[in-house]
Amino acid sequence: MELFDVIKHRRSYRGMYQQKPVSRDQLRAIMEAALAAPSGCNKQTTSVIAVDDPALVKQLGDMLEAPHFASAPAAICILTEKKIAYRDRTYYIQDYSAAIQNALLAIEALGLESCWVEGHITDADRIGRRMADVLGVPENLDLVCYLPVGYAAEEGTRVKKLPFEERAWFNGYRK
Amino acid sequence: MELFDVIKHRRSYRGMYQQKPVSRDQLRAIMEAALAAPSGCNKQTTSVIAVDDPALVKQLGDMLEAPHFASAPAAICILTEKKIAYRDRTYYIQDYSAAIQNALLAIEALGLESCWVEGHITDADRIGRRMADVLGVPENLDLVCYLPVGYAAEEGTRVKKLPFEERAWFNGYRK
Repeated sequence: MELFDVIKHRRSYRGMYQQKPVSRDQLRAIMEAALAAPSGCNKQTTSVIAVDDPALVKQLGDMLEAPHFASAPAAICILTEKKIAYRDRTYYIQDYSAAIQNALLAIEALGLESCWVEGHITDADRIGRRMADVLGVPENLDLVCYLPVGYAAEEGTRVKKLPFEERAWFNGYRK
Repeated sequence: MELFDVIKHRRSYRGMYQQKPVSRDQLRAIMEAALAAPSGCNKQTTSVIAVDDPALVKQLGDMLEAPHFASAPAAICILTEKKIAYRDRTYYIQDYSAAIQNALLAIEALGLESCWVEGHITDADRIGRRMADVLGVPENLDLVCYLPVGYAAEEGTRVKKLPFEERAWFNGYRK
């Protein structure tokens, strides 16, 4: 699928998923896309765990308390290490965000759906940490994002965005 | 260009650029790609300014004190607004990072080169703020990233990355 079409058609899917499974080849392609993203000073702070074991998907899904996301037959969990890039500077948020965006585009290109689930699992109730414990993720890594992966069972929606002219200009602010 | 090829071939280019200009259509395609990225709670915290006016590109390039980046005939400046998404949570870093990744993929798909220049301009000497002042960007927005855009004049290099098995697993950490 052509890049500009993928970018244009990608959306955050918040509907229920079909039970049709996602293949290992598809999951691997999504993971490789994520890891191909750049990272500050090439620190490669991002790592990923794909989950397709039905019992494990169910266990993690139940923690989400969000039936639509939990209905996906597979998921990609994004891990980050808050590593210093140089001096006191860190870029791990930038690193994992670029990796997530690559993953989301790969998911779209494969005809699958997903949604960037971050705030929901990194909030005070620390769902991400509980998921990490289930997956055996050590304390020096944070599970910051859960990407449900699967085929849409509903039509889904698309958020409205501001027009180009409100967010993009040439050679000066609001020019 | 096919998505997975673009993701695989994208790299951070740190060589000199040709003086061959970048067209408005190309810049607009890159900007549209950036703005198509998702944002936390759809707050659309990211905006962009493309610079192709030769005098302005030179003025900003001189501030960079990096002749290779400064040699690009055009650039995309990434602006962010540190807006609250909900309660006390912000996602503006995630938002602009996803937008930058889309922009970098668009640049690659167009046969152009770039590099994510962030730490260099957001450091204590605040090059990004001085660039923002030149572009008339108000104080509530930060210019956090400078993407040089142009055709490679040199071969360039590619960083080495850890193997897949060191960063990606199925159904558990290091499984």
